[in-house]
Amino acid sequence: MKTDEKLNFACDYMEGAHPAILEKMQETNWLKTAGYGLDEFSESAREKIRKACNCPDAEVYFMTGGTQTNAVVIDAFLQSYQGVIASDTGHISVHEAGAIEFGGHKVLPIPHHFGKISAAQIQTYMEDFIKDANHDHMVMPGLVYLSQPTEYGTLYSLEEMTQISTVCSKYHIPLYVDGARLAYALASSRNDVTLEDMARLCDAFYIGGTKCGALFGEAVVIPKPNRLPHFFTIMKQHGALFAKGRMLGIQFDVLFTDNLYQRIGIPAVELAAKIQTVFQEASIKPMIETETNQVFLIIENSKMEELSKKVEFGFWEKYDQNHTIIRLAASWATKEEEVALLRKYVSE
Amino acid sequence: MKTDEKLNFACDYMEGAHPAILEKMQETNWLKTAGYGLDEFSESAREKIRKACNCPDAEVYFMTGGTQTNAVVIDAFLQSYQGVIASDTGHISVHEAGAIEFGGHKVLPIPHHFGKISAAQIQTYMEDFIKDANHDHMVMPGLVYLSQPTEYGTLYSLEEMTQISTVCSKYHIPLYVDGARLAYALASSRNDVTLEDMARLCDAFYIGGTKCGALFGEAVVIPKPNRLPHFFTIMKQHGALFAKGRMLGIQFDVLFTDNLYQRIGIPAVELAAKIQTVFQEASIKPMIETETNQVFLIIENSKMEELSKKVEFGFWEKYDQNHTIIRLAASWATKEEEVALLRKYVSE
Amino acid sequence: MKTDEKLNFACDYMEGAHPAILEKMQETNWLKTAGYGLDEFSESAREKIRKACNCPDAEVYFMTGGTQTNAVVIDAFLQSYQGVIASDTGHISVHEAGAIEFGGHKVLPIPHHFGKISAAQIQTYMEDFIKDANHDHMVMPGLVYLSQPTEYGTLYSLEEMTQISTVCSKYHIPLYVDGARLAYALASSRNDVTLEDMARLCDAFYIGGTKCGALFGEAVVIPKPNRLPHFFTIMKQHGALFAKGRMLGIQFDVLFTDNLYQRIGIPAVELAAKIQTVFQEASIKPMIETETNQVFLIIENSKMEELSKKVEFGFWEKYDQNHTIIRLAASWATKEEEVALLRKYVSE
Amino acid sequence: MKTDEKLNFACDYMEGAHPAILEKMQETNWLKTAGYGLDEFSESAREKIRKACNCPDAEVYFMTGGTQTNAVVIDAFLQSYQGVIASDTGHISVHEAGAIEFGGHKVLPIPHHFGKISAAQIQTYMEDFIKDANHDHMVMPGLVYLSQPTEYGTLYSLEEMTQISTVCSKYHIPLYVDGARLAYALASSRNDVTLEDMARLCDAFYIGGTKCGALFGEAVVIPKPNRLPHFFTIMKQHGALFAKGRMLGIQFDVLFTDNLYQRIGIPAVELAAKIQTVFQEASIKPMIETETNQVFLIIENSKMEELSKKVEFGFWEKYDQNHTIIRLAASWATKEEEVALLRKYVSE
Repeated sequence: MKTDEKLNFACDYMEGAHPAILEKMQETNWLKTAGYGLDEFSESAREKIRKACNCPDAEVYFMTGGTQTNAVVIDAFLQSYQGVIASDTGHISVHEAGAIEFGGHKVLPIPHHFGKISAAQIQTYMEDFIKDANHDHMVMPGLVYLSQPTEYGTLYSLEEMTQISTVCSKYHIPLYVDGARLAYALASSRNDVTLEDMARLCDAFYIGGTKCGALFGEAVVIPKPNRLPHFFTIMKQHGALFAKGRMLGIQFDVLFTDNLYQRIGIPAVELAAKIQTVFQEASIKPMIETETNQVFLIIENSKMEELSKKVEFGFWEKYDQNHTIIRLAASWATKEEEVALLRKYVSE
Repeated sequence: MKTDEKLNFACDYMEGAHPAILEKMQETNWLKTAGYGLDEFSESAREKIRKACNCPDAEVYFMTGGTQTNAVVIDAFLQSYQGVIASDTGHISVHEAGAIEFGGHKVLPIPHHFGKISAAQIQTYMEDFIKDANHDHMVMPGLVYLSQPTEYGTLYSLEEMTQISTVCSKYHIPLYVDGARLAYALASSRNDVTLEDMARLCDAFYIGGTKCGALFGEAVVIPKPNRLPHFFTIMKQHGALFAKGRMLGIQFDVLFTDNLYQRIGIPAVELAAKIQTVFQEASIKPMIETETNQVFLIIENSKMEELSKKVEFGFWEKYDQNHTIIRLAASWATKEEEVALLRKYVSE
Repeated sequence: MKTDEKLNFACDYMEGAHPAILEKMQETNWLKTAGYGLDEFSESAREKIRKACNCPDAEVYFMTGGTQTNAVVIDAFLQSYQGVIASDTGHISVHEAGAIEFGGHKVLPIPHHFGKISAAQIQTYMEDFIKDANHDHMVMPGLVYLSQPTEYGTLYSLEEMTQISTVCSKYHIPLYVDGARLAYALASSRNDVTLEDMARLCDAFYIGGTKCGALFGEAVVIPKPNRLPHFFTIMKQHGALFAKGRMLGIQFDVLFTDNLYQRIGIPAVELAAKIQTVFQEASIKPMIETETNQVFLIIENSKMEELSKKVEFGFWEKYDQNHTIIRLAASWATKEEEVALLRKYVSE
Repeated sequence: MKTDEKLNFACDYMEGAHPAILEKMQETNWLKTAGYGLDEFSESAREKIRKACNCPDAEVYFMTGGTQTNAVVIDAFLQSYQGVIASDTGHISVHEAGAIEFGGHKVLPIPHHFGKISAAQIQTYMEDFIKDANHDHMVMPGLVYLSQPTEYGTLYSLEEMTQISTVCSKYHIPLYVDGARLAYALASSRNDVTLEDMARLCDAFYIGGTKCGALFGEAVVIPKPNRLPHFFTIMKQHGALFAKGRMLGIQFDVLFTDNLYQRIGIPAVELAAKIQTVFQEASIKPMIETETNQVFLIIENSKMEELSKKVEFGFWEKYDQNHTIIRLAASWATKEEEVALLRKYVSE
């Protein structure tokens, strides 16, 4: 790394894939396999995911990206007249270009607390809905959507997720968790929610690959078999059925060999903590303590502009007249030396 | 290849990718690039495709699969009250699980002739529609969808495609061509429609990668810029925007380097012709002369069953009480020795 | 009626309503009632319809028109990945501007025989679907749609409808019957399917008001309660929930008082038979013997043009180079003298 | 009116229609007219509405209810990837059971001020959207939806509506106004927005009939012809095309004869003011000064319960621990003596 090179912490999907994935693709390139996930690699990956979730009967499906996965799963859960409860900052609420509405469903937003919503909020929403004399004229909530970690990199604790699961059960509303960055949750020392817990508490969740070491791909886990009948056809209808399914199978097979998925995010979480320290040492405060691989900082505008000459990062939102919130993301591919160079730039 | 090995001609997407693609992925793995197709590889691929189409202003977008691409392009072309004219055997009519209807649009089927429809049929459809006193109560045709080659491996000639394009212009209906297997059309000695012709005659078409040497991916070409405004957002809304866009860019960049795409299908078309000969020598007739990489055969049922012990192929449809139509597909990855072994099995 | 007046047999919804309906509207005008069908008139109408169907637990909902009713009922029955089997001449297949596709569902057309489809055809469709190796890539049939009488005015016999109901049960596909002109079926001496039979054989059907003596309105009967949960909300979502619901209630209450609905079509069916005779006497043959209130005639083109100067009728379709099929419709409001004048015009 | 009769101010669509409407229906009952709004009464009504709006080229379409009208118009305006900006209390945001999302579009809510949103808010929304680096991943605003009067009975002034129209023009976003209760706006002395102003400032608006003296029906006015091509077919596709269109035509023809529509709401607005006074005299304060036909009151819970024994009204929302906001609505059919009796009940 040259000492004047431009750094890039803009997001966590800028590199290719973990080398073991490319190797396996190379190695298996000339094999002929059945399409659409009916191949041996996909089956092996499914089996390893089931084991990791301690959920031997789980259905596992692979798709190519997060928005696609959310749209398919949510559409599969909801009846035509139902909507999905989500944090107002949830990916489906804001950054999926109306993919949920395209499927005919309303996103029912709840105010967030650093990206999270609570069991109490969901309970209140449900009670208000039930009591509303006009609720037959309104969109019925039919699913709760969470992200673990959230858009703000924050984590639901096991207690929080258990409470939400309990409220969902009480109102017969299934619970679905978006795990686009799940590897970084699993890698965090602050996290106490395991894959096994998620399989126990959720009606479905997805294990993110795209941001967590794969070229692309997300693995949907449906703990109770036949919970979402004809899911295969629903995927096809959404254009989400991948022809050479083994490309997805191979990736998740590698990621779930020797706990790679559980380990792959560890350096990223550590580097994120270091990134936060780098800024704190320069008296630039985090908006919220980093818990996973993302760092949100409240930075004075002129400093931000200066920094942007040497570092790429994400503009999150305006904080006040003179400050902006920016985001730096570490990933499985981020190197120590990048953070070292960042320290140099920030301290200058 | 062992002399008693089971052969597999079931479809044309059973192997991985052309080695040059994997090599380039390996080589570029640690580079950081922007997401969503804004990277340098995607731009390079777009530029090469524009050149191959002799269409310097064309917009080019990459998606991951055929059904997805059809759904997005068709939805982008149609107004909410319009439908798409297609052969009744078209992929969108039958084998996309209602993906077009999911977007709110009707597929308006026209009877096919070995997978093809004609300018005359489209003209009649349009005239009947216009003259129908109730046409304001009906779905207005807003797009014509063809496949080149078709589901039956047949080819539209330049004259036929020109006629269709002329009829479409006459009625102000855009023309869209599904090129899932386009490499095999371009590789056929019977073909006289070039990429340049397609860019001149169509409002959009896609260049298939998944079945033509890529791991996955299809490249949509929109010859006239801004013909489909906000196409990027429409892709996102359909869950069809690929995060690490460079994976698609790299693949098409390799495929459009040194005319690889135009050459990659040649062996497959030659082997398909040989496969047809193998069967003809055993007095098993083709349903229709093979023109590209697929062979359709009318086979006596007991022979079919015997063959199926040693060869995997596709069941197409019942022909009569005693015969079935089967399909064998060659691909860019099929080897001479596979056909040699097939000859042995068929002649036994 | 003047002897040179222009006659109008163009359709069966040209007049207002049965006078008893207007009278009751007048009489109740200043009453205050709850909206959305929760009023006493709607409840009374529901109760009378339940009695007429001998189905005390049936749910009954009122909507304003046929296309709307079909769209709502079909959407309520189908899962997102399912389509509806219908005659290729069915109203939903052709003349509802894609209302079913707007809801995301494909209409799966079956060739008709004078508007009708048979149990055998449905059985074949289902068997073919189940046996198709690719059926997970196709639209799953989730409902059978019939019209009684059909678009051609033909009737399903009790035996035919029973057979269809049996096939539907066998494949767990519900059966829905569009009764836009049901009064004319009930009024026909050729008919042997009663309301009670329909309630026994169908999962839902609607009793048409718009063409059968009401200002507007259709009554959906769902024999088994809770068969379509949240139907009220689905109506609202479709913009099909009528605010002053009592307007619909009053109309059906009147129509189901003293069997008015069962009687109202009788003169129309008789006059249709007379209309057919009028033409037969002039050597103009019916395309098919009239069974209800519509008459389809094969008429020589020059005669058709002459007739059109004095009579309005519907152009159905081209028959051959020199002949056209035209349709004349009688309604509950058609008068003897109109047919008498028609005889004069035709015989001239 | 008996002195102990239960009063009903629950909503403004509890009675039938203005007597002149029923009379005209009676009078024209046996006429034969063309369907779907192609009749002479519909044409006469359209012409009168065009005159009332001083907009001779306006297109006018009739539908049966407000949710239906909103869904059709909004769907006609929006491209598939666009959403509609509305007050978070707007009817389409809350009380249409997801009818807009059913058509594939997101409602983009803006915080309301007593039901209203401002030009400044819309401007900010648009600027934020345009500046957002991720706006291609978000739902593009494609329409602004207002209600005049709003759900809270409040009115946009001419200045406010002009400002909003100006902002809409600036950002090339059309403006659509829901006039479900428009007669009560036109009848208010506080109102300075005429039909002519609306035709000048809006791209479309609807003139409400259901709540304003008709049995049912809303008239959509599209000032610039061909602004929404194929609107007729879009109506059909939504199940919103009324077969016996003259029923709608007759109603609006009567309402727009001798300025009946402009006059019909006057007593209601006066009575609403009296209702407010009745409560103020009993020290029950309005949530906001009544401007049209609705009165919103902050009432102590025990008083509310007592009142509810003698008066039906709407529960709006909880105000605080001890108070609730209730709504009383007067309509064109409300009588002085009802308010007199209310005074008695409230003052007791």
